[in-house]
Amino acid sequence: MKVITISREFGSGGRELGKRLADLLGYAYYDKEIETEIARRMDMDPGYIARHIDQGAIVNVRLHFGRTIAADDLLKQQIDILVEKQRLLRELASASNCVIVGRAADSILEEYRPFNLFVYADMEHRVKRCQKYGKEGEDLSESGLEKAIKKIDSKRSEYRKMFTGKGWGNMEDYHLCVNTTGLEIKEIVPHIAGYAENWLK
Amino acid sequence: MKVITISREFGSGGRELGKRLADLLGYAYYDKEIETEIARRMDMDPGYIARHIDQGAIVNVRLHFGRTIAADDLLKQQIDILVEKQRLLRELASASNCVIVGRAADSILEEYRPFNLFVYADMEHRVKRCQKYGKEGEDLSESGLEKAIKKIDSKRSEYRKMFTGKGWGNMEDYHLCVNTTGLEIKEIVPHIAGYAENWLK
Repeated sequence: MKVITISREFGSGGRELGKRLADLLGYAYYDKEIETEIARRMDMDPGYIARHIDQGAIVNVRLHFGRTIAADDLLKQQIDILVEKQRLLRELASASNCVIVGRAADSILEEYRPFNLFVYADMEHRVKRCQKYGKEGEDLSESGLEKAIKKIDSKRSEYRKMFTGKGWGNMEDYHLCVNTTGLEIKEIVPHIAGYAENWLK
Repeated sequence: MKVITISREFGSGGRELGKRLADLLGYAYYDKEIETEIARRMDMDPGYIARHIDQGAIVNVRLHFGRTIAADDLLKQQIDILVEKQRLLRELASASNCVIVGRAADSILEEYRPFNLFVYADMEHRVKRCQKYGKEGEDLSESGLEKAIKKIDSKRSEYRKMFTGKGWGNMEDYHLCVNTTGLEIKEIVPHIAGYAENWLK
């Protein structure tokens, strides 16, 4: 099966790019679906899974709690979720061609020889994108968003480090790095799809 | 006019990529032609220009010589060459659509809004490429080539720093970063050409 993984800076349009790429190529698309499915299998709340897995919570637990019973239980639970996640990613990659956004899939699925894409953009562009797609009630001020973007990126970086021992956003870990500053995602997707298909053939 | 600049790690195939891109798009292609033309205009030896300009010689002069008359003369000559080079790059970018390889063209031609491509590959691939295209009499051993590649990259980095004050190979300075490890350049060029054309339209 052919696998495309997408790592992305928050606000760079990586998710839209992944979705459009999957639609164009006829691949399955996995993003939040992953937490939903883990939650279903483990009979847990998807939001809890997302918060505690994709936000680098394990690291925080290790730093902030001593070796108390409660912390150990939490850690055990989180490891179970991680193991389930790795199993699920491998199942998905074996089942059909797919695009997977985030979740350190490039590293977890290394043996599937995925095409690994990194999507980035300058801060001004990312703030504007967040303002465009932000929800009512969120802090959509420039400074508020810049702070939020940096925080999310830093958590993604921590998460990747935890899984892979590698830094985040290092060119050499990816096959193609795309700067979306000032671009319409839908216009660049056909070229990236062609590139990825050639790479995966 | 439309300008594509190519920055590349030595041995990554950036030059071949640039040449094929120019051929496919019908753009002019400039690489060593730049030193040849400067040499013609200044009535100097092209090899001398290449060695003393593109190898970061100004930095070395500043470090190794005191303020002697001879060093000042050399420095003056090198600045003259640099000024001529900037003038030439602007002339070329104004004359026709073009692809320019190296020469800090992405920075010198910033006001032309060029599409800036970075081409890289892992060391093993770069060594193999150098062995394939190396000339008789050169040290084509793995360790010899690895050393030579690192030295050339470091000089390119110094040169860029001197011109732009910026580091080399930082993703955010480029619009697309292409990892050529294991790839045939001719197969990826059409997709990159499509991407660049969309960016430049």
